[in-house]
Parts: sequence; C-alpha cells; structure tokens
Amino acid sequence: MTSERCGLENFFNPRGVVLVGARRSPGFGFVLPLALQRQGWGDRLYLVNPAGGELHGMPVYPSLAEVPGEPDLAVVIVPAEAVPGVLEEVADRGIRHAVVESAGFAELGEEGRRLQKRCREVARRRGVRVIGPNCVGVVNTENRFSTVEVVEEALTPGTVGVIAQSGVFGNILLDGLHQRGVFISKAVTLGNRMDVDECEVLMYLHADRSTKVIMMYLEGAADGRRLVETLRLVTSDKPVLVLKSGRTEKGREATASHTGSLSGEDELYDAVFRQTGAVRAETLEELVDLARVFASQPLPRGNRLGIVTSSGSLGALATDAAVEAGLMLPFLSEETESRMRKIAPRWMNVRNPLDVGPSGAYLAAMKALMEDPGIDMVLSIMVMPYAVFREFQARGVSVRDFLGSASNLRALAPEKPLVVCSLGDRGFLEELDSSLGPEIPVITSPERAARALGALYAYRSFRERWG
Amino acid sequence: MTSERCGLENFFNPRGVVLVGARRSPGFGFVLPLALQRQGWGDRLYLVNPAGGELHGMPVYPSLAEVPGEPDLAVVIVPAEAVPGVLEEVADRGIRHAVVESAGFAELGEEGRRLQKRCREVARRRGVRVIGPNCVGVVNTENRFSTVEVVEEALTPGTVGVIAQSGVFGNILLDGLHQRGVFISKAVTLGNRMDVDECEVLMYLHADRSTKVIMMYLEGAADGRRLVETLRLVTSDKPVLVLKSGRTEKGREATASHTGSLSGEDELYDAVFRQTGAVRAETLEELVDLARVFASQPLPRGNRLGIVTSSGSLGALATDAAVEAGLMLPFLSEETESRMRKIAPRWMNVRNPLDVGPSGAYLAAMKALMEDPGIDMVLSIMVMPYAVFREFQARGVSVRDFLGSASNLRALAPEKPLVVCSLGDRGFLEELDSSLGPEIPVITSPERAARALGALYAYRSFRERWG
Repeated sequence: MTSERCGLENFFNPRGVVLVGARRSPGFGFVLPLALQRQGWGDRLYLVNPAGGELHGMPVYPSLAEVPGEPDLAVVIVPAEAVPGVLEEVADRGIRHAVVESAGFAELGEEGRRLQKRCREVARRRGVRVIGPNCVGVVNTENRFSTVEVVEEALTPGTVGVIAQSGVFGNILLDGLHQRGVFISKAVTLGNRMDVDECEVLMYLHADRSTKVIMMYLEGAADGRRLVETLRLVTSDKPVLVLKSGRTEKGREATASHTGSLSGEDELYDAVFRQTGAVRAETLEELVDLARVFASQPLPRGNRLGIVTSSGSLGALATDAAVEAGLMLPFLSEETESRMRKIAPRWMNVRNPLDVGPSGAYLAAMKALMEDPGIDMVLSIMVMPYAVFREFQARGVSVRDFLGSASNLRALAPEKPLVVCSLGDRGFLEELDSSLGPEIPVITSPERAARALGALYAYRSFRERWG
Repeated sequence: MTSERCGLENFFNPRGVVLVGARRSPGFGFVLPLALQRQGWGDRLYLVNPAGGELHGMPVYPSLAEVPGEPDLAVVIVPAEAVPGVLEEVADRGIRHAVVESAGFAELGEEGRRLQKRCREVARRRGVRVIGPNCVGVVNTENRFSTVEVVEEALTPGTVGVIAQSGVFGNILLDGLHQRGVFISKAVTLGNRMDVDECEVLMYLHADRSTKVIMMYLEGAADGRRLVETLRLVTSDKPVLVLKSGRTEKGREATASHTGSLSGEDELYDAVFRQTGAVRAETLEELVDLARVFASQPLPRGNRLGIVTSSGSLGALATDAAVEAGLMLPFLSEETESRMRKIAPRWMNVRNPLDVGPSGAYLAAMKALMEDPGIDMVLSIMVMPYAVFREFQARGVSVRDFLGSASNLRALAPEKPLVVCSLGDRGFLEELDSSLGPEIPVITSPERAARALGALYAYRSFRERWG
C-alpha cells in the first residue's frame, strides 16, 4: 500500500504548505512565513505550533490534524527529538512530502544516527518522501516557492539547477549567485539525505524543462554505482558541473562530520566524473564561472580559440590557461589578417592573441574573430585604464556606445561561445557587466575565463564521442 | 665621464619634471599634466611641445632648452621616431633620468628593435637612465608623484612595491588593487627595458624603507643569472611575489610580441623561484591575494592551521586547499576543546576545522583558536545567510558589534596570521570588509584564502632554512 514511492514534484510545486514549527522568536520559524507571504504564498500556507494563536496575521494551528485546506507538503522546523512524531502526524494528515530542516541527526554521531534511522523508518512505513534532515530544502523560481528565505534577486528565474548538500552553504550560494550573473531554475539542499539523494534530484532536474544546466556541490555520493549511471544519463542531455570536496584525508574527515556522509577517495571521483562527462570544478569560484558560461553560451564546434585583448600581459596569461585547458590558438585566416591590417596602427601585431592595445580597433578585431570560420570561440579581454574610462564618461560615451549591444555582438556568430574578461576600476566593470549581461558573461580573471571556455569544449567533445 | 650610472632615486623623487609631448588632444599628453597638478606637482612641472602656447593654465615651452627651473626627470610621450633626438635634448638640459612612455620599439619587430637600439646608444653615451620605452613609468604614493594617471585611491600610501612589465597591465592593476585592499608604496612598469630592468628595481625596492612586500609580474627575465642572485638577496629580507606568464609555448609567443622580450622555459623559472625563495602565484588573483596577506599578516611560526567556520562545506573546501598547500590541521588542545565544549550546543562537533554553524559561538571559537598554543595561524570562514544578516541589521546589530574591532581580534595573538574568508550577500561582504580592513584581509574564496596562508608558511620556512 505504501511501497509505491511518490516523485519529487510536490517539493517544488505544492498546492499548499504546512510549516510545522512556526514561532514568534527569531529564527527560520519566524522569518520563513513572512518570506512565503511576500512571495505570494500566504493563501496556501498553514502554520502549526502547539501554542496556537496568530503569527504575522495568520492563524497558528495547534496541530497538523486541525490544518484546513489541501496542503500536500510539510516543512518541518522542530527540535530533532520531535521529528519522528511529526512525520507520523504529517502522514496522518495525508501529506506525502516533507522537508525536514531540523539539525541534530547523523551529523552528530551515534545517537543522532539512531534518531535519523527512526525518522527514516517512519517515513518509509508511512510513504512520506523526505528532503533532509539538516538542510534548508528547496527553491523554485518559477512559482516563487522556497523553504528558505533568500534575497529577492535570487528568485529571478533562470536556467541553472542547483544541488547542494549542506544548508548554510546552499543558502550562501543562493544569496551570492545572482551577483555573479547566475540565475537559477530550482535549487535543493539535501542535508543528511535520509531519503531523497543527489541521484533522484539529478533525474528530476534532467526532466525539468526550465533547467538547462545543473550545478552540484557534493561531499560524498550516497550510492557510487547509481551516481555513475545517473550522471551518464543526465550529461548526455544537460551539462552537470560538480564541485567535490574531501580531496584530502583531512577534508574528508571534515565532511564526514557535518552532513553525516562518508566521502570516498578522490581519484575514484575524478575517474567517475571524467567517464560520465560531468565537468569537475577545482574551486567554488570555478563552479560559479562554469554555471555562468554554460548557462549563457552555446557549445563550441571545436577547440580553436581566438583572443582579442587590450592588454598584452592579460592576453598572455589567458593564453597559458587556455592551452593548459586543452584549447588551441590557431593562426588567423588570411582574410581576417588582411581585414585587420587595413585598420591596425603600425605598432599592432596582427596575430592570435590579437593585442589591439589602446587603438580604436577593439570592436573591429572582435568582429573579425567572431566571423573568422577558423575560430570556434572568442575570449575578449577588455580593460581600460581609469583615466581613459573617465575621459569617455566626460564625453558622454558609454561602454554600450563603444561596443554596441550585447545582442548585436551575439548576432555576429550565434553559434560561437563568447566570454569577456575584464579587470580594474569598479565603475568600468559595473558598466561593462550591465551592458553585456546576461547574454555575455564578464569574468574578472583571465585564467578563469579561459578555463571556462576549455570546459565548454571538453563537454562538447565528450558529447560527440558518447552521444 | 658618463660611464658612472646614476641610481633610480630621481625616478621616484624628482625635484622637477619635464613632460615632453604635452598636447591639447586627448591622450596621456593631455591628462597627465592635469593629474600631476591635482597631485600637487603643478609648481615643479614643465611642459614641452614645439607648438608652445599654454595648457591647463601652464606655459608650454617650445623646447627643452627653454625650460626654466631645476628639472631632473623627463617624461617622454612623443612619437617613437622622435625619441632619440629628445633623449639628446634631455641630456643637453642636464637631466639624467627619463621615463619613455612612447610605444613603437622592439615590440614591433626588426625596425622597432633598430630604433630602440639607437635610443639606447644615445642614453648610454649621454649617461641618461631610462625606464621604458612602451610603459607608463612610475608611481610613488609617498610624495604623490606618478607618470601615469590612476584613480585617487591608488595613491593611498601602502607597503607593497609593484613591478610590472607592460603599461596597460600595470595601469589596470593600479586601478584595481585598492579595491582588493592592497595599497602600494611604489610601482614601476618597465616596458621594453632598454636600460632599467626588474633586477635593478628589485634592489631599489629592497632598500626602500616604505616597501615591505614586492609583487612582480614578469614575462621573461632580462638576465637570468642576475635575477637569481638578486632574488636570493632580496627575499632574505622582503617577500617577493611573482606571477610569470609564458608557461606554454603559445603564451611565450604572445609575450615575445608585446614587450619585445624572449621568455624562457617555464620549468626553469619554477626552479629559480623555488630556489631563491620567491613566492610564485599561479594566477593574477592569487598574486593579489598574496600581496594582501603578506602586507598585513606576520609570518607564522609553523604550519599548524586552525579553521573556524560557520559553514561545514566551506570548511571542507578550505581544508582540502590548505593541506594541498602544505599546511596541517592539528587536533585542538585539551584546553581549547574543554573551553569550547562549555559553550557549544549539543549538535556541534568540537574539532578542527571547527564548524560552529549558526550557533552564537563564532567569536568564542575564533578566540579559542587564536589563543591555542598548538595553532600557528587561523582561517576564519564567516558567512551569514542574507535573512540572518537582515535580522541583525533590523535590530541595529553591526558586524563590528558581533566581532569586535579588528585591532581587538588582532591583539588576541599578534604573532599569528589571521585571514577571513567570506561569501554571499554583497551588503554583508562590504560591511565585513570595512569592519576588518585593512588589518585583517577578507578573501572571497575558501581555496584562495587557504593557499595564501600556505604561501606565508612556505616563505617563512624558506627564510629559516636559508636565512
């Protein structure tokens, strides 16, 4: 009778939500109802606390049994010891999906593990699907539903699906991603994974129409073999970007403590990601770069990179990183070369990387590379000394006047990835970002920009070999 | 008579400056006089242009010969072909130091190389020391003298000496460093190095009292053997942080083009830096992190790192990077452990890395680690979900109320390096940065923060072995 397990849909698209553990004192139980009201969920939200009464103008029901309407998701924020009982009541109320945010389970050692096992037993027996415990649950930007309060900008609909293990981290990530131009479709923090794990969420996001790219922070796989099979399936349609911690023994110990999972050996994970076409990020910053670039750029046809730059040194740094990431910098075609020679000042070396220095030829060079059939992708390093930028500002010239619109640049070669790298004065950077975003990513490191393009190519060539 | 070469002092502390190539049209010749006036150099600045007349309310002398006063430095911004003649006139006027900013020399190939050789011949024969060509010269924050216009904040006096090869890059670097909490003493962009090279500047900065840390971007050594000897000498007193491009063949080609130098093999450079105690950065961002941390933190006594974190995942990522950078995370001392157990909530694992989660124990944990005699340095990962930060703001609680002042934190263990890592909401980051800066660096990546601490230890142990 309860052996048939429900899917994850209700976690993201509930008809009604019960918050068990609403309270008047500071904390999630106080702020989450407010956030959900603000996000338009007030009429489908039911608060529960044995004390009853009212909170933020809403009735508080003393028990789940008294909740009216048709809630089909419970968000549980009660002390750990109370969770098994609450899960029984959730099931009694006919609800089959619960996000358990409470901490105090397997991450604490033996006693916590026992408690978690009890919760799991209740959930399995009663047919309740659980995300958590020790997490902050889900976000769906499409319907503005979230079981954690995030900044308003983080609810801007995007195409990146996020999977994280721990709650604080997932929360911080969501708070910061929009500042880096990454907008999400759905996000899940899995916590201790007593039931729902990364594989099931991967499959859900694989099928989700609004998700085009999946980014995942993983401390250890819940089930290694299933992870391999799942990644193989998912990456054949959508890129999966992974940051895996626990590379060192000390790092593994650290992860073992805090979400109660046991990390495996790093070399094994490396092999798994390589064989399944998952793109592994080395650092958290790189994970975010990858999400930004994969979500906005097409996959390249080949590995031939053209670099145009207004600083030779930054061009050299990007070239090093690009070659190390498996890209090549071909010679320019004869046509591109003669096209550039016509407008290049005497001091300019017409080659790849194409250092246009302070000449006015920047935009022409970028166009020439975008249109060169021997170039598969373009890295545009655009820096401007503050003094020059201020001159432009004084003359009323904006970055957009200088570069044209992002969509015009994009239209030059819609099939080629284009990434802009810039550094220097904050004012210039902000103007550049707002002129180009969201279509064209601006990355503030030549090495990270080059590596992101290398990852696009690596994923494309994996798909070609195995797709 | 002219065989005795002058030192570099006049480049940084001129009595008076002639700007050859002042002009009314946009460009350096127009903006630099304005910038120097603004920086208090108007009464020691002389403009030269054959057209004569007036610029920004100052007389323009038709030739160097007509310049009054006691100028002892020339800044040359004229077309390349005119530079040999100008250098003769500079010498005729009794000036023995010239910054040649003009481009169009060895970076252009054979013809340019010949022209550069002619300039060099004049300079040698007439005893004129030259920085450049193809550069933007120098900055000295102490006397607010600069041969390039930079943002006002870049002139805030600091302790970091900067050596860069190319002009645009140096300029962009100066425009951006202050935003990352790095403040400079002196900066030099060397350009094509027809005379003054990185070794001579290293020696100058070695002797310079206001410089405590040297950061250098290098495309290729002017003289390999001399670089080894110079680095060995300098690093025994002051850390030298190096970013070297041309790691790959394509990258080397790119650098050969733009400042006319030939890059050497990367493995060789790696060995040179390792043997001389220079600290090599892998990326431009890392170079800036290193400057920030070396300029503000003491050298650690050993490699025992304590990590306190409000996010377990970020703690794990930092732990991996720290171990890979040669640091170790020791067990906490019994005293520290019992001190923490007294205040730790039940769910907290008292260990290293010390994940305090959302407990109120953050500051107490940080203090405990700072005061633990078994810990040589502390990485403090402080993140706060936006919802929590907003709660604090609403209650009028600032980061400073929460953490205390930077100098109080610093006073807990003045001999231990302390780096803070944070991520997430921009408002929180800015408040954190302004509460802790400039004494305590805030780095927005757990991996980069850990690596910077690893570099501090590596430099310290080099000094102990060879000092």
